[in-house]
Amino acid sequence: MRLWLRDEIDTLRSYVRQLIDVAVERAAVEIDLILPGYTHMQPAQPIRWSHWLLSHATAWARDAERLEQLAQRVNIMPLGSGALAGNPFAIDRDALAQELGFAAASANSLDAVADRDFIAEFLFWATLTMLHLSRWAEDLIIYSSREFGFISLADAYSTGSSLMPQKKNPDALELLRGKAGRVLGDMAGLMTTLKGLPTSYNKDLQEDKEPLFDAVDSLGGALQIAAGVLSTLNVNPAAMRAALTTEMLATDLADYLVRKGVPFREAHHITGAAVRMAELQAIPMEMLEVDDLRTLHAAFAEDVAEVWSIEASVERRDVAGGTSRRAVEAQIAALRASAPPA
Amino acid sequence: MRLWLRDEIDTLRSYVRQLIDVAVERAAVEIDLILPGYTHMQPAQPIRWSHWLLSHATAWARDAERLEQLAQRVNIMPLGSGALAGNPFAIDRDALAQELGFAAASANSLDAVADRDFIAEFLFWATLTMLHLSRWAEDLIIYSSREFGFISLADAYSTGSSLMPQKKNPDALELLRGKAGRVLGDMAGLMTTLKGLPTSYNKDLQEDKEPLFDAVDSLGGALQIAAGVLSTLNVNPAAMRAALTTEMLATDLADYLVRKGVPFREAHHITGAAVRMAELQAIPMEMLEVDDLRTLHAAFAEDVAEVWSIEASVERRDVAGGTSRRAVEAQIAALRASAPPA
Amino acid sequence: MRLWLRDEIDTLRSYVRQLIDVAVERAAVEIDLILPGYTHMQPAQPIRWSHWLLSHATAWARDAERLEQLAQRVNIMPLGSGALAGNPFAIDRDALAQELGFAAASANSLDAVADRDFIAEFLFWATLTMLHLSRWAEDLIIYSSREFGFISLADAYSTGSSLMPQKKNPDALELLRGKAGRVLGDMAGLMTTLKGLPTSYNKDLQEDKEPLFDAVDSLGGALQIAAGVLSTLNVNPAAMRAALTTEMLATDLADYLVRKGVPFREAHHITGAAVRMAELQAIPMEMLEVDDLRTLHAAFAEDVAEVWSIEASVERRDVAGGTSRRAVEAQIAALRASAPPA
Amino acid sequence: MRLWLRDEIDTLRSYVRQLIDVAVERAAVEIDLILPGYTHMQPAQPIRWSHWLLSHATAWARDAERLEQLAQRVNIMPLGSGALAGNPFAIDRDALAQELGFAAASANSLDAVADRDFIAEFLFWATLTMLHLSRWAEDLIIYSSREFGFISLADAYSTGSSLMPQKKNPDALELLRGKAGRVLGDMAGLMTTLKGLPTSYNKDLQEDKEPLFDAVDSLGGALQIAAGVLSTLNVNPAAMRAALTTEMLATDLADYLVRKGVPFREAHHITGAAVRMAELQAIPMEMLEVDDLRTLHAAFAEDVAEVWSIEASVERRDVAGGTSRRAVEAQIAALRASAPPA
Repeated sequence: MRLWLRDEIDTLRSYVRQLIDVAVERAAVEIDLILPGYTHMQPAQPIRWSHWLLSHATAWARDAERLEQLAQRVNIMPLGSGALAGNPFAIDRDALAQELGFAAASANSLDAVADRDFIAEFLFWATLTMLHLSRWAEDLIIYSSREFGFISLADAYSTGSSLMPQKKNPDALELLRGKAGRVLGDMAGLMTTLKGLPTSYNKDLQEDKEPLFDAVDSLGGALQIAAGVLSTLNVNPAAMRAALTTEMLATDLADYLVRKGVPFREAHHITGAAVRMAELQAIPMEMLEVDDLRTLHAAFAEDVAEVWSIEASVERRDVAGGTSRRAVEAQIAALRASAPPA
Repeated sequence: MRLWLRDEIDTLRSYVRQLIDVAVERAAVEIDLILPGYTHMQPAQPIRWSHWLLSHATAWARDAERLEQLAQRVNIMPLGSGALAGNPFAIDRDALAQELGFAAASANSLDAVADRDFIAEFLFWATLTMLHLSRWAEDLIIYSSREFGFISLADAYSTGSSLMPQKKNPDALELLRGKAGRVLGDMAGLMTTLKGLPTSYNKDLQEDKEPLFDAVDSLGGALQIAAGVLSTLNVNPAAMRAALTTEMLATDLADYLVRKGVPFREAHHITGAAVRMAELQAIPMEMLEVDDLRTLHAAFAEDVAEVWSIEASVERRDVAGGTSRRAVEAQIAALRASAPPA
Repeated sequence: MRLWLRDEIDTLRSYVRQLIDVAVERAAVEIDLILPGYTHMQPAQPIRWSHWLLSHATAWARDAERLEQLAQRVNIMPLGSGALAGNPFAIDRDALAQELGFAAASANSLDAVADRDFIAEFLFWATLTMLHLSRWAEDLIIYSSREFGFISLADAYSTGSSLMPQKKNPDALELLRGKAGRVLGDMAGLMTTLKGLPTSYNKDLQEDKEPLFDAVDSLGGALQIAAGVLSTLNVNPAAMRAALTTEMLATDLADYLVRKGVPFREAHHITGAAVRMAELQAIPMEMLEVDDLRTLHAAFAEDVAEVWSIEASVERRDVAGGTSRRAVEAQIAALRASAPPA
Repeated sequence: MRLWLRDEIDTLRSYVRQLIDVAVERAAVEIDLILPGYTHMQPAQPIRWSHWLLSHATAWARDAERLEQLAQRVNIMPLGSGALAGNPFAIDRDALAQELGFAAASANSLDAVADRDFIAEFLFWATLTMLHLSRWAEDLIIYSSREFGFISLADAYSTGSSLMPQKKNPDALELLRGKAGRVLGDMAGLMTTLKGLPTSYNKDLQEDKEPLFDAVDSLGGALQIAAGVLSTLNVNPAAMRAALTTEMLATDLADYLVRKGVPFREAHHITGAAVRMAELQAIPMEMLEVDDLRTLHAAFAEDVAEVWSIEASVERRDVAGGTSRRAVEAQIAALRASAPPA
C-alpha cells in the first residue's frame, strides 16, 4: 500500500508541477492584461491577469510542498512487524528498508500495524488541493459567464447544445468543484472510521482502501483536467478592459494624497468627498477639474491626472507580492525556480 | 492571527513533547511488565507494556513532526498585501518579515488575503492528534474495565460514586474521545466553508476563527489531560500476568519449527495439529509431552520447553521495532533523542 | 435538553414560516418580472422572478415539513430511566409524560440514556436548511454583482466603503454561506463522536451540547437575516430585461415546430440550422424572414413571430410547477395554504 | 433515480424490519438472562439481556420511522420540469404522477432540477442507522472479548486462525463499525458538494450518484449481516451470571431505605456507610448483619435480605421502559405491533 502510494505520489507530483507550469507560463506571456480584482464578488482594484494566475499557482506550490513532506512519511517500511509484536527471526529491517528504497523502517511494530496516518494525511492533502481547484474553478465559471465574459473555455472542456450554440457550459470546472466535496467525504469517512478504534489491527482498517483509491483517482483526473482547461482557455482582453472603471481607483486617489503628505485618515475623508463631488456633477471621477479638487484640499495638483491610469495603478503596487510588472515577474521567477530538478 | 497561532503552536509543541516524555519515561521504568497484545480485541501475542506505551509515543512523535512542518507555513507574513492588490508605498516586505520574526513574506497579495490553508492544515493536525488520543483513550478505557483490570486511573482523572465506590468512571478519557469528534467537526466545517469560494477575500472567511480557537483550546486541554492521566495511572501487574496464557504462544511454536528448518507452511500445519492435540488431551499446550510432539514432526526436541516462556517470547522478537528489551530500549533512546534542543 | 430544544424548534418553525411568507408575498407582487433562468451559470430560458423566489420557498417548505416530523421525536420524555435500568418506584411514566406535554415516554431505559438521535437529526435538519440558504445566498451574491446587477441589497444587509461607495459588499449573504460550513461541522462532529461508542451512557455524550447550541443559534440568526435580506432587497427590472435575449428562445422555436407536427428530433435539427442561419446573416434570430425559415422546413408560417415574445415563452410553460402566471399563482396559493393555522 | 431509490428503500425497509424481528424474538426467548448493565464501560446495575437487545431494537425502530417519512419525499415526480422552466406542452403532471405511482408531482420546475434533498436525507438516514449498528457492534465486540466472554459469534461471522483456534476475530462486526465511517463520508461529501452551489442545474450535481449507490449498497449489506450475526450468536449465561456481583446493588439498598420512608439524600448517605462497612469487614455487602446495618439506621429490617437478589433487582424496575419482566414484555409487544402490515 505504501509502495503503491509512493508511486502514485510521484505521478501526482508531476501533475501538480505541470499545472503550476501552465499557470506560470501563461502569466509570463499575458502579463500586460489587466482585469478587475474582486473582493466579495464586487470589483475592488485593478490587477494583472498574471497576478490572478499566480495567486493560484502560489496555492498549488504549497500543495507541492506539503506533498513532498508527506511523501516522506508514506515512505516508511512496515515489513517485519509481524501480526503486531515484531518478527522473531534476525532480520535487519534497516538494511531491508534501504534495499527496497524506503526512507526508514517503522519504529514500533504495534504502531506499524495500526498506523493509517499516511492515508489520512494524503486524504487531507487531496482535499485541500481539491479545495484550491474548486476556488479556482469558481472564479473561472464566473469569468466565463455571459455577464462577465473575461474568458471562454475551449470546446474540449465545455459542453454546448445544438439548440443553444452560444451556451457553453463549463462542465469540466463544475465537475472539479463537485469532486472537492467527494474527496472531503473520503477524508471525513476515513477519519471517522479511525476515531475511537483500539490500537493495533482491527478489521475496520480495511475501510482505508476505497477512499484512498478514490482520492488518488480523483486527484489524478482533476489535476490533468485543470491543466488542460488552463492551457486552452481564451482570454477576452476587450471584456476585461471594459470592466475596468475609474471608480476602482478611489483608493489610488487617497494614496496620492498620502504621498503628498496628507495624513491617512484625512486622505480617505477627502477622497470620499471627491467621490460625492463626481456623483453630484454626474461625471466619472477622472473628469473632475483640478480646481474643484483643490476646494477639497490644497495638495491636489495637475499630476493628479496620473492617478487615473489603470496601468499606473497596478504599477504603483510595486511591493513584493504586488501587481507591478516587476513584482509579478519576480513571482514568475520564484515559481520557475521552485521546480524540482528534472 | 498567524502571530497568535505561532505562539499557540509553541505551547502545543511543548505539550506534545511532555506527553511523549511521560510515555517514554514510564516505558523505561516499567520495561519488565508484560501483557497480552490484542488484535480485533482478542489476545494475540505477549508484548511489553512499554511496547504499548511506545506505540502511542511513536504516533505522537509523528504529530510533533507534522506540527513542526506546518508551523513553517503558519509563520508567513501577509502584511503589505493591501485589500487584495498589494501595498502602493515602497515597503520592504522581506525586511519587515525578518524584523517581525516571520520566516518569509507571502508571495502573492491576492493569495494572501484568500489563503486559509494554514488554518485548515492546523485543524487537520489537531484532528489527527485527537484521533491518536482517542485510540489511546479507548485502549485505556478497556484496560481499566473491571473485566480487564490491567490499569486503574488516578482519582483525579476518574469519577466515583458515593453509592458505588468500586465504580471508577474514566471520565477524562471519555471526554478526550468525545473531543476527537468535535475537532473533526471544526475541520470539516472550515473546509466546507472554503469549498467553492471565489478567490480573494469573502466574508465567509470570517468563519475561520471559532473553529480555530475551539481546536486550539481543545488540543491544549486534551494534551495536558492525557499527560496527567498517563503519569498518574497505576498498573496492575498481577492482572496483566494472569491474562497471559500459553495459548498465545502457538505462533512461537511454529517459529520454533521454522528455526529447526521446517518450511513455514508445514510448521504452521504442524502447530495446528499440536493445538488440537492439546485440546484432545484437555491440557494447556505447554504440558504436551515431547514424545507426543515428535509424532507430529521429528524436529521437536527437549528445547521445545523454552517456547513456553512468556519472557522468552517477547525477547525473541528482537528485530528493530520489536518487543525485546534491546529493541524497546532502542525505541526509548530514539524518542529521547528526538526531543528538540531545550 | 429535549424540553429546551422543543421550545427552540417552536421559534425556528416561526422563522422558517416567516421566510417562506416573505418569498411568497414578493412572488405575488412581482409576478410580472422576468429574468434569465440559468443552468451552469449560463442563461438558459426566461423565467419569472417569482418562479425563482418560489423555487427557494419550495425547498424551505420541505425544511418546515422535516422540522415538524423531527419535533415529534424530540418530544419524548426520558424521565424515569434512572441511570440506565429504569426507575424502581411505581411511577406512571405515561401519565407524567402527558402532564409535561410530551408526546410519549421513552420506550427503553437503556436506549433513553444513550439516545442522541434527536440531536443528530436536528443538526442534519439545520445543515440542510443552511445548505438551502447558502445556495439561495450564492444566487443573490451573483445577482447583486456589478456584472449581473439584477438586484441590490438594502444598506442594512451590505457594507459599503467611504472610498468606494459604489461597492456594496453582500456581507450578510456571505456570512450565511459561511455558516453553512460551520453547521455541517457541528453535525459531522457530533456524529463522529457517536460512532462506535458502547451503548448506554458514556461521558463522550457530554459533547452533544455545544454543537446543538451553536446550530440553534446559527439557524435562528441565519433565518432572520435571510428574511430581512429578502424583504428589503431592491429588484432592477431594467437589468433583468436587458439580460433577456432571443437567443434564449431557440428551445421555443423547436417547440413551435413540434406543435406543428414536426418530430422532436427533426425539430431540434432544423432549429440548429436556423441558429446558424441567423449567425451567417449576423442578425438576431427574431429578424429571420419567414421565407428563409421555410427553406429549412415548410412548417414555418407567419405565426412564428409569436415565438419571439419573452412573455409568451414563460406563459407557454403552463404545466404544474411551470413558469406561466397561472402555474406560478398556483404555487403561491399552495404555499400560502401550507401555513400552520395561526 | 427517485424510482430506483424508492425500490431500494422498499428493500432496506424489509431488512430493518428483519433485524428488529430478530432482536425482538431473541428478547422474547431469552428474557430470563441477566447481565451487568454498563455505563462508562463500568458495571452499574443488572439488566435483562432482553432489555439490552430491545434498547437497540428501539433505535432501529426510529430508523424505520424516519425511513418511512423520507420515502414520501423521495417519491416525488420531477418529470415535466424541462431543463429548468417546465414543460411547454399541455401535460397533466398530476395525472402522470399518479399513473407512475408517485405521491405527487414536484411543485416548482427550477427547484426540481436542483433538488438533491432526498439524497442528502437518505444519506443522513443511512449514516445514523450505521451509527446505531456501530454502537451495537461495539457492545458485541466487547462482550465477545475473552475477558468479558458474554457471547460468542457464530463461525460464519468471525475469523479464526489455524494457529490460534481459540481466537475468534469479530470481523463482521468490525466491518460494520468501519462502514459507519464510510457512509458518514458519503453524506459529508455530498453535502459539501451542495454547499454554495447556485440554484438550478450545475454539473457538480452529477456527484450525487456514487455516494448514494455506495450508501445503498453498504446499508443493504450491513443490515443483513447484522441480522445474521444477531440470529446466530451464542450467549454464555454462566459468564453473564458470574459478572453480576452484589456491589452492583448498592443503589437498590438506597431504594430500600427510601421505600421505608428515609429521605433520598439520607438514604444515599447511609448506603455509602454500609458500603464502607462491608469493605472494613472484608465481606460482600449481602453478608452484612442486619444488626450491624441497624447501627447505621433503624429502618433496616430482616427484609433487607431481599435487596440482594439480582432477579428482584431487575423486577423492581417495573416502570414503563424498565427491566422487569412485565416491562420488557410490554416492549416486545409494542415492537411486534409496530411492524407494517405484511
